[in-house]
This record gives sequence, C-alpha cells and structure tokens, in this order.
Amino acid sequence: MRMLINVPETVVADALRGMAAAHPELTVDVERRVVVRRDAPVAGKVALVSGGGSGHEPLHGGFVGPGMLAAACPGRCSRRRCPIRWCGPRRVDSGAGVLFVVKNYTGDVLNFEMAAELAEDEGIQVAKVLVDDDVAVTDSLYTAGRRGTGGTLFVEKIAGAAAEEGAPLERVESVARRVNERSRSFGVALSACTTPAKGSPTFDLPEGELELGIGIHGEPGRERRAMMTSREIADFAVDAVLEDLRPSGPVVALVNGMGATPLLELYGFNAEVQRVLAERGVPVARTLVGNYVTSLDMAGCSVTLCEVDEELLRLWDAPVQTPALRWGR
Amino acid sequence: MRMLINVPETVVADALRGMAAAHPELTVDVERRVVVRRDAPVAGKVALVSGGGSGHEPLHGGFVGPGMLAAACPGRCSRRRCPIRWCGPRRVDSGAGVLFVVKNYTGDVLNFEMAAELAEDEGIQVAKVLVDDDVAVTDSLYTAGRRGTGGTLFVEKIAGAAAEEGAPLERVESVARRVNERSRSFGVALSACTTPAKGSPTFDLPEGELELGIGIHGEPGRERRAMMTSREIADFAVDAVLEDLRPSGPVVALVNGMGATPLLELYGFNAEVQRVLAERGVPVARTLVGNYVTSLDMAGCSVTLCEVDEELLRLWDAPVQTPALRWGR
Repeated sequence: MRMLINVPETVVADALRGMAAAHPELTVDVERRVVVRRDAPVAGKVALVSGGGSGHEPLHGGFVGPGMLAAACPGRCSRRRCPIRWCGPRRVDSGAGVLFVVKNYTGDVLNFEMAAELAEDEGIQVAKVLVDDDVAVTDSLYTAGRRGTGGTLFVEKIAGAAAEEGAPLERVESVARRVNERSRSFGVALSACTTPAKGSPTFDLPEGELELGIGIHGEPGRERRAMMTSREIADFAVDAVLEDLRPSGPVVALVNGMGATPLLELYGFNAEVQRVLAERGVPVARTLVGNYVTSLDMAGCSVTLCEVDEELLRLWDAPVQTPALRWGR
Repeated sequence: MRMLINVPETVVADALRGMAAAHPELTVDVERRVVVRRDAPVAGKVALVSGGGSGHEPLHGGFVGPGMLAAACPGRCSRRRCPIRWCGPRRVDSGAGVLFVVKNYTGDVLNFEMAAELAEDEGIQVAKVLVDDDVAVTDSLYTAGRRGTGGTLFVEKIAGAAAEEGAPLERVESVARRVNERSRSFGVALSACTTPAKGSPTFDLPEGELELGIGIHGEPGRERRAMMTSREIADFAVDAVLEDLRPSGPVVALVNGMGATPLLELYGFNAEVQRVLAERGVPVARTLVGNYVTSLDMAGCSVTLCEVDEELLRLWDAPVQTPALRWGR
C-alpha cells in the first residue's frame, strides 16, 4: 500500500478540503460532500448534477463549473445525505429543473432514483439520463445492463453546454440521451487498483497479463491475456467499440488513462487509436487525451468514441470552465 | 513491466504522433522531436524554448502555446539534432530573441549551451535561465548544484506571460530569474518509476518505505523512512521548502503528483499542505494541484512554492492556452 493518505476513513473529506483550497471558484461543502458551482443556482438554466463513488477523479467534482455540471456528489449517499437533498433544491435548481447524470451502477441508480423522488416532492422538475456506454460486458459485478464509464464525460460536457445555452429541461435531457446513445467505450487494465479501505489490490492481475474489457471498479472484463503491445490493444479496443457503434459520421475520441499510466504512454496509445480509426474509415473531429475517468492507481486505458452531428460537435466545442476541462472564452 | 507501449525505442516518437493528432493547435515535428506553437514565430515577441529528457509529461510539450513556451524539445539531443538548430532560428525566433529554460541537469545544461552557441552563430539573441529549485540535495546523480523540478512550471508560465505581453528579452530573462530565485521544491517518492528502456524499477524502494527528497529521475533523496501519513509528509516537505525560501509575502503553491498518485490523494495532500502553510503564517495566493512534472509511473508528490509580488502574480494569472495549463481568455 503506497498511499498518500492519513487514514482511509477521511480520504474523501480530506480531498474535498484540498479541492476547496485549490478552487475558490467552487463551493465545496465538505461535511455534506457536495461540490457546487459557486454561482448556482443560475437563473433560467437547467442544472446538471452527477455523482457516485469516489476514486474516479477528476470525474465528477473536477467537471463542476460553467458549461458542465452544476454540482457533483462524491462518495456514497445514504437516505439522510442524499445528494439532491443538499445540492438540488437549495443549491442548484433555479426553477428550470435538474438533470441527473447517472452512471449505470446499481447503487448509483437507486440513490439517484430516491433523490429524484425527494426533489419532486419539493416541487422540483427532475429528469435523469442513465449512462451505459461500456461495450465490454453486460450485467457485471455492480451493474444490470452495460456499465457507465468514459461516455459520462461526453454526456456531462455536451448536455452541460446545452444547459449553459439556456435550453429547457426536455431539450437538455434529449441531448444527454442522444450523446449516451452515440457513445461507446472499452477499457483495459494493466494492473489492479488499490482502494484506501481495502489497502490491497482489488483483484489479482499477474505481472505480464492484462484484462480486456475492465470496468472502472475492477469488475471482471471479457478476457485475460498475455501482455499486448499498444498497437494490439488499440486494435482490440477500437474494434470492440466500432462493432457496436458503427458510426456513419465523425467521432470525438476520448483516450483515457485509468490513473497510473503515464501521459507519455497515453499519447503513444492515441497514435495507435488514430491509426485504427483511419484504417476503419472513421473521421475524428476532436481528440481528448488524459486521465479523466480513472480507477485510483490502476494502470491502463480506455477508448470512448462519441459519434457527433453538427450540433453535438458545436456543444462539445462550447466554452467550459471546470478544474479538469477548460477551454473557450 | 506494465507498459502501454510498442517497443521502448519508439516511445517518444509514438507519443509525439499521438500528441500531433490530439492537438492540431500545435505543430509537432516527430522526426526532429520538437513541439512548436503553431503561430510561431510571433512578431515582436520573445520565444521561450525548453526541453530535456522525456518521461516528465506534461512538462515540457504540454506547456507549449500562447502565454507559455514557443517550443519544447523532448528527448535527448545530439549535436546533429540540437533543439535550437530546428526550433530556434527557423521556427520560433521572430528577431526578438529566444529564452532557454534549462532544468539544472548536467546533460541539459551542456546541450542548451551548445544550442545557444549555434543560434548565436546564426545571429539570434539567446538568453538562458537555469532552474534549480529543488532544496532536497546539492550535487546529486545527474546534477552539480541543485536540481530543477517543479519550479520549471512557474518559470515557464510566468516568464511566458511576460513574453506574451511583448517584454524584451532582457526583461523576460530577468522575470524568469526572479521566479527561479523565489521558487523552491521538495519531492517524495512512494514508489520508483520504470523507464521503457530499462523495463524494471529505476531504484529499489521496498513496500512500506518512502524516499524523502527524491528528484524527478529517481535520484537518491535525503533519507528513506518507514511510510508516513499525508499529514507527516506535508509537514516535512513544506518545512524543507520554508527552511530555504522564508517568504515574506504570498506564495503560489504547486502540489504536484509524480505520475501514479491518484488525484483523490493529491487533493487530500493539498489539504495538509495548506494546513502547514497556514500554521507557518504563509498566505497562499493561488494553488495548482495535479500531475504536471512527473516521473513516468512513480507514485509520490512534490510541493513547490513560488513567492510572488504583485507583478509575478499578475503574470501567473495571465491567459495561457496549452494542452496542460489553460485559463483566461
């Protein structure tokens, strides 16, 4: 266990304190575990709210800010501390409604359903979009159906831009659904991650092997193989995505690190991803390379493609000002 | 060896190809190993050039763009492929001169000296600033004097902003020197890193121990100890910096990950760094948390403080548009 922590019990609270200090442009409520855009609620605008277990940073807290999320709720939530109780009515809803972006993990789904009921009881309009972009497996350890992984970034960015433009709730929701329907991911683990609570690797992956189709919680993937080259991994991952997505137009590509894979290697992997896409005749409109949807100290990578039309690409390019994604104006 | 690569020999070239694909706003010359701001040379403006061994990404290639570097030269350079031969005269010098930002490692110093001679032979004005911010040790494995680490980011950002404003070479150079004189770093390794060429950890750090005062190449630090908490590491690292810096005004803090330490832990560590600084009466004007000056897949962190006056803080806040640092307009 090589962790830069005090004790496992305070890891999330400590991180929120550190985030508050580094980002005065956000409101961080450490006790209630919520990161909120400082100017929320923003009059007339739909508020996107996401959350789920910690350990996938910068997802979701690093995506809070103008043009993306209004609030993120890291860590588990119990009935008493349900995210919407804190960040919905009182913090982010301007009257235009709230869109929950929910990764398809059973616990997340239940928590956000409960949160939606509570918010609706308070008279708040709530819509939900379930992100299930991972083509690797169906019905895995924590999920019925497909898992939600890298596609979450596309949903939050693109629907967040629609909300920022002032689109009404139904419209923001339909954009979010459209992005999810057009996004597919495939991930590969070169090592397991170690959670603070457990203190040892969450699964056993022998040196010299990799796991194809891994989720972001170390759930089993499709198969385990002897170590492959960057070129072979790109062929496998991109083909797995394209088998399901079959884009007829350009895509935005996310070449994502799982946390411990160096940026030098991720860029090299991106070269291979671009090669496969070119060979398959898929035009790439934009590419984002980096550690965005992670699994603590897991080595590995994932590829997410989102097929974009003119509108979705315009919303992708729209200004965003968050700790982890930042461009435009 | 859990690397996402093809073969060690092509790692840097592969990464540059991947970088080119992801960043059309940069000109990446894969063969000559140089990353250049696309609009270079920019009329009337001093061009900052940096470089050195790869494996510290996003340093330096990720810092190329308006408001920071004009060019970065990753990888080693031989006489035949000296960085300035390619990126100086022909690529970045507008006639206003070039400032080399050189981390104090013997090889880097020699290469940039040779490059400066060649450029001057071609009639280009060259100034150099040597970055030597690391307080941990003097005269280490690859260095005479102090090593250059996290302070490089401050020098490149702040002097880059001065250049962007149109300051003349002597002024940009003096700003760079001032930033270096006011910047101090201390790093800690929780694990060794593995270089593609070697394929095994660069040094031996037993589980349950950490190395205090590590450099960014796995050079020996001050001492090895049994694992410490985030709180204890922050006390040690910040006090080591403050013993040398003794700031009378506010600082900008860089809480940097060495590559494989999760952002969740880095933010938690930042909370402890801020606590120590508050206890020592040092006001913090700005804080940057993330993996910026790395050592491949090394777990660990470093703290860099830069004492700022009004001008340096204004230049820090000035707009920057690079792959890794991006804010303002």
